[in-house]
Amino acid sequence: MVKVGIIGYGYWGPNLARNFFGNPRAELKYIADNRQERLKLAGQLYPKTVFTETPHQVMNDPEVDAVIIATPVFSHYELAKEALQKGKHVLLEKPMTASSKDALALIDLAEEKGLSLMVDHTFLYNGAVRKIKDLVEDNTVGNIQYFDSTRINLGLFQPDINVLWDLAPHDISILLHVIEEKPISVQSTGISHTDNGLENIAYMSLKYKDGIIAHFNCSWTSPVKIRMILIGGDKKMLVYNDMEASEKVKVYDTGYEVKSDADKQKILVDYRAGDIYVPKLDTTEALKYMSEDFIASILDGIQPLSNNTLGYQVVRIIEAAEESLRNGSKEILLNF
Amino acid sequence: MVKVGIIGYGYWGPNLARNFFGNPRAELKYIADNRQERLKLAGQLYPKTVFTETPHQVMNDPEVDAVIIATPVFSHYELAKEALQKGKHVLLEKPMTASSKDALALIDLAEEKGLSLMVDHTFLYNGAVRKIKDLVEDNTVGNIQYFDSTRINLGLFQPDINVLWDLAPHDISILLHVIEEKPISVQSTGISHTDNGLENIAYMSLKYKDGIIAHFNCSWTSPVKIRMILIGGDKKMLVYNDMEASEKVKVYDTGYEVKSDADKQKILVDYRAGDIYVPKLDTTEALKYMSEDFIASILDGIQPLSNNTLGYQVVRIIEAAEESLRNGSKEILLNF
Amino acid sequence: MVKVGIIGYGYWGPNLARNFFGNPRAELKYIADNRQERLKLAGQLYPKTVFTETPHQVMNDPEVDAVIIATPVFSHYELAKEALQKGKHVLLEKPMTASSKDALALIDLAEEKGLSLMVDHTFLYNGAVRKIKDLVEDNTVGNIQYFDSTRINLGLFQPDINVLWDLAPHDISILLHVIEEKPISVQSTGISHTDNGLENIAYMSLKYKDGIIAHFNCSWTSPVKIRMILIGGDKKMLVYNDMEASEKVKVYDTGYEVKSDADKQKILVDYRAGDIYVPKLDTTEALKYMSEDFIASILDGIQPLSNNTLGYQVVRIIEAAEESLRNGSKEILLNF
Amino acid sequence: MVKVGIIGYGYWGPNLARNFFGNPRAELKYIADNRQERLKLAGQLYPKTVFTETPHQVMNDPEVDAVIIATPVFSHYELAKEALQKGKHVLLEKPMTASSKDALALIDLAEEKGLSLMVDHTFLYNGAVRKIKDLVEDNTVGNIQYFDSTRINLGLFQPDINVLWDLAPHDISILLHVIEEKPISVQSTGISHTDNGLENIAYMSLKYKDGIIAHFNCSWTSPVKIRMILIGGDKKMLVYNDMEASEKVKVYDTGYEVKSDADKQKILVDYRAGDIYVPKLDTTEALKYMSEDFIASILDGIQPLSNNTLGYQVVRIIEAAEESLRNGSKEILLNF
Repeated sequence: MVKVGIIGYGYWGPNLARNFFGNPRAELKYIADNRQERLKLAGQLYPKTVFTETPHQVMNDPEVDAVIIATPVFSHYELAKEALQKGKHVLLEKPMTASSKDALALIDLAEEKGLSLMVDHTFLYNGAVRKIKDLVEDNTVGNIQYFDSTRINLGLFQPDINVLWDLAPHDISILLHVIEEKPISVQSTGISHTDNGLENIAYMSLKYKDGIIAHFNCSWTSPVKIRMILIGGDKKMLVYNDMEASEKVKVYDTGYEVKSDADKQKILVDYRAGDIYVPKLDTTEALKYMSEDFIASILDGIQPLSNNTLGYQVVRIIEAAEESLRNGSKEILLNF
Repeated sequence: MVKVGIIGYGYWGPNLARNFFGNPRAELKYIADNRQERLKLAGQLYPKTVFTETPHQVMNDPEVDAVIIATPVFSHYELAKEALQKGKHVLLEKPMTASSKDALALIDLAEEKGLSLMVDHTFLYNGAVRKIKDLVEDNTVGNIQYFDSTRINLGLFQPDINVLWDLAPHDISILLHVIEEKPISVQSTGISHTDNGLENIAYMSLKYKDGIIAHFNCSWTSPVKIRMILIGGDKKMLVYNDMEASEKVKVYDTGYEVKSDADKQKILVDYRAGDIYVPKLDTTEALKYMSEDFIASILDGIQPLSNNTLGYQVVRIIEAAEESLRNGSKEILLNF
Repeated sequence: MVKVGIIGYGYWGPNLARNFFGNPRAELKYIADNRQERLKLAGQLYPKTVFTETPHQVMNDPEVDAVIIATPVFSHYELAKEALQKGKHVLLEKPMTASSKDALALIDLAEEKGLSLMVDHTFLYNGAVRKIKDLVEDNTVGNIQYFDSTRINLGLFQPDINVLWDLAPHDISILLHVIEEKPISVQSTGISHTDNGLENIAYMSLKYKDGIIAHFNCSWTSPVKIRMILIGGDKKMLVYNDMEASEKVKVYDTGYEVKSDADKQKILVDYRAGDIYVPKLDTTEALKYMSEDFIASILDGIQPLSNNTLGYQVVRIIEAAEESLRNGSKEILLNF
Repeated sequence: MVKVGIIGYGYWGPNLARNFFGNPRAELKYIADNRQERLKLAGQLYPKTVFTETPHQVMNDPEVDAVIIATPVFSHYELAKEALQKGKHVLLEKPMTASSKDALALIDLAEEKGLSLMVDHTFLYNGAVRKIKDLVEDNTVGNIQYFDSTRINLGLFQPDINVLWDLAPHDISILLHVIEEKPISVQSTGISHTDNGLENIAYMSLKYKDGIIAHFNCSWTSPVKIRMILIGGDKKMLVYNDMEASEKVKVYDTGYEVKSDADKQKILVDYRAGDIYVPKLDTTEALKYMSEDFIASILDGIQPLSNNTLGYQVVRIIEAAEESLRNGSKEILLNF
């Protein structure tokens, strides 16, 4: 039984609380938030949980095994550091930290202390992404050639981070989870329509050593809501349309084959457009699996899907994209 | 009555022939193509037209007023130059030429000779784009803030040009037609999955002096066909979905207003999500209007919508995008 | 302040409880259900409410002003009768009763006692139906000529009622609410694929005195979920597609005009296909308005939208449809 | 080589002409139409064909082997009779005749003369219906339990026939082709909004001996165009959506299983909602296969898919539906 305390009961905290409360291997010992009205709300649902306005009460209780941090990203590093130093396992909301340096420091500290440090990239646990991962791993898709993501909406402008920090972690985590090879560089372009200079529209491209490109289209200012990822392999192509009620993943037996030939002047591309297959997806709440994975990483010592290396890489990519945005969209090298 | 000769009777030539044949102010005097079987096909439809395998016969006939060039892009410059030098008005298929230098040279020559030189960017004449142009011009949309285009498909790989040269002219011509301000720089990233190094997926971003961004997503290797343009103004946002059978243009009374305030730390964005309006569109074939516009530019001396300045700018933008692609996606300045 | 007791805490009861709990003019005094585990569930949410396994405790408490009955339909009559006899206002879940005779008896009793008796046809209160009602009332739609409803799904087979009793009340209530004129006859055809003979697919047609037809397609055995109503007027046509996330109601400036003419042999129909308008809808939970309407019917003496006459007519129509089903689809006359 | 003459060059005639012209086993000898302007149009496309205003010239030419009748339905019987009597094979446009009596008389005459008599139900030859037929024949779908068709549009009002005669032949022919068992009765309800009393909206139900129901929703007065057929089997369910550009047929591994049990009070239905499969369809023009089938019925003596028994049954069903419409929607027995 893992005794957990949740710090931050804002937008995502209630979902975390509900799932850890429902997990038979966890006990929801604390919920901390500096807003009394949030604690009052939680109090109606979890009569046995302790509520506090100060996270340190959670950190200082020796009975607490794990701390779940669901606060704004700027506070992640300090809170996670304190928790690790006090011997607690840590689950961090995405994005892991506000800088890659902080992420690496936390990873080192967790390793030194022998503690679990995990990031909640919930999308990795939903039925659609699990199915996509399977289709890539069992070589149904073949060698991946591109990854094209669009996540646009009339969204809430965040006051302290741009649209990439807000929306891209979802898609980057899926990319890193599904494609084993890592990107070698990042470029980004975008625009801010507010005085604070934070981009509300941004495009990001990732290059790979060979044969793969990944592109991300993120916007808070689209009149239509699109959440779509195309993944092209040399055997099959996938479309993951998260706005579809029931046909979220489609597998296209569609492709082209490039023939090697002495005579380069001729087009040597063979087309194929075949059946489409729409697999039934597991509709279990993704957060249920995520919370189980965190508990298992503590009790069973397994490596979680949404591990801290992936969490760090997500941060590093967005950080590099921001560097690109501030420097005339220049290409920023990664070093994974 | 304008006597016209069409050079090139491949994919697009038959549509041009049909429309100029049907135009009461034009006479379809010649069709030239170096493939006998193409001429035979045309012969069944236009019994009074002269068919020839050599374009020079068309150029050398003093009765011919105008030459319509629908051959592969690499041959545009030489054919158009010859026609202009022989005193013919010229209509060029898009893209206008293979280089911006050639485009400028043709424009100079046409001006010197006092001849019409027009480029067939057919999209400018369809009901959807005409409606969009109206909505922008009458200030329904307000100040434009972004233009986001996706044109992807499982398309035919072209043997001599990359996907931008093939697909982007449509969207760039719409952009230049709809937004008066001109872009100041181009950046592009992409990937080639063929030995010839020609990109089959490419992304292109255009920057403007202030407040506008334009982005283009072009691919020959998508399992789904998407042809969608989002145009965001500060009063309304438009979606032009060319794959919709009957609701191609939607006008969203959707937006956000950024308030100026002393305290920059607060978010000062006001949202609005209102009614949607789906205007009925003129479904007349776009090519009919285009052919009328060309004839009017000759007989009535009017400036056509799809004029040669716009044609040149389209070429220059793609040329700069290609330069960006060959140079690590660096930003290439335009000088319009 | 109206003190209410809810009888039945199954599928719909929790939604009723939440809305009456949140209503500032109501007090949720009782929840009754004969299943302890349901009461336990409710107990976590409403600490001040009294829970009981017997509805009679609710009925017998002189402090209770109103009883809300959310039990299976076969028990509606007896429970509502007892409540009315004991001087309580009554809100019944749809369908009102298992027979029209029972519905009329309850209406008489309520009138005699001077008590409110209302039926919860929730659909009448949602933003889409309210908008449709407005568009019909302000004569935007013109004279209504047809009403065509499809409500099909892979649905739960009910053990004691056929698919019409389960699904059609929604659509019939919308019909009766939107069109003032009442139908004069019912016909129905259907099929049962189970041993109990209860139809899992059924079609129902309603005839009117002149110029209107209404048709309903109901199924528990469709692989796709469709919830669509077409309403045709002589000025505009409406489509209400409840499966659309955000564009549920579309108003088509589409129609045909029939011209009277001496010569009947010619077709005298003029077509029109114009703009489409997608109004923004009020997204407030329908049940909130319904609960307010019930409270207002008690405290303010107003006639609720979802009144008992409409509730009775819904029951009578389905009852007649069932009679038609049992008699070779013969036409059954109504007498509204 | 079959020498054919086409009688009627209106809406469908040009498509027939093009396909028989392109058929290597046919020669398009005649096109007859009483409108000179129609013949002129045809003359541009088929320089070797003989054009005439009188069908009798076609009938009387001993060189003509087969006559294709694409005139309004009221003239089908007389023209076909004359052709058969003069020893010509006959292909009739759908619907075969204006009455079932006429259809039977023609079938008898053709048999007596040993001539081919076929009806052009083109839909039977398109890729979607061919695939559906395969999926039913190879028992993928299992025992069929229902057939539900919707064919609605803002359509042209026909001056002499109601909406069933205009639209339902497509769907009835598919039904009869796909399901071997024949219906035993017909019922129909509808409404006319024109003075001529011809229904512009009509619903039709077909009953079977056991376990199957078929229903048709036909309208010329819908603001949206829907062409959808649901076919439910006990193993799979099919959706044929003809408005989809590329995913016209979807195969749902969705169903329910009814268990026989002593205790009839319990629900004994097991649900299943599995993968969806979207087969690639043959996109060859259906009319090409249809014309080949007619020629093969003459030269090779094979029974065509769209044979005259099916053609007769389609007519008989609509005739019975009209009888039902004229008699208060009463059930009309069929006798196939």
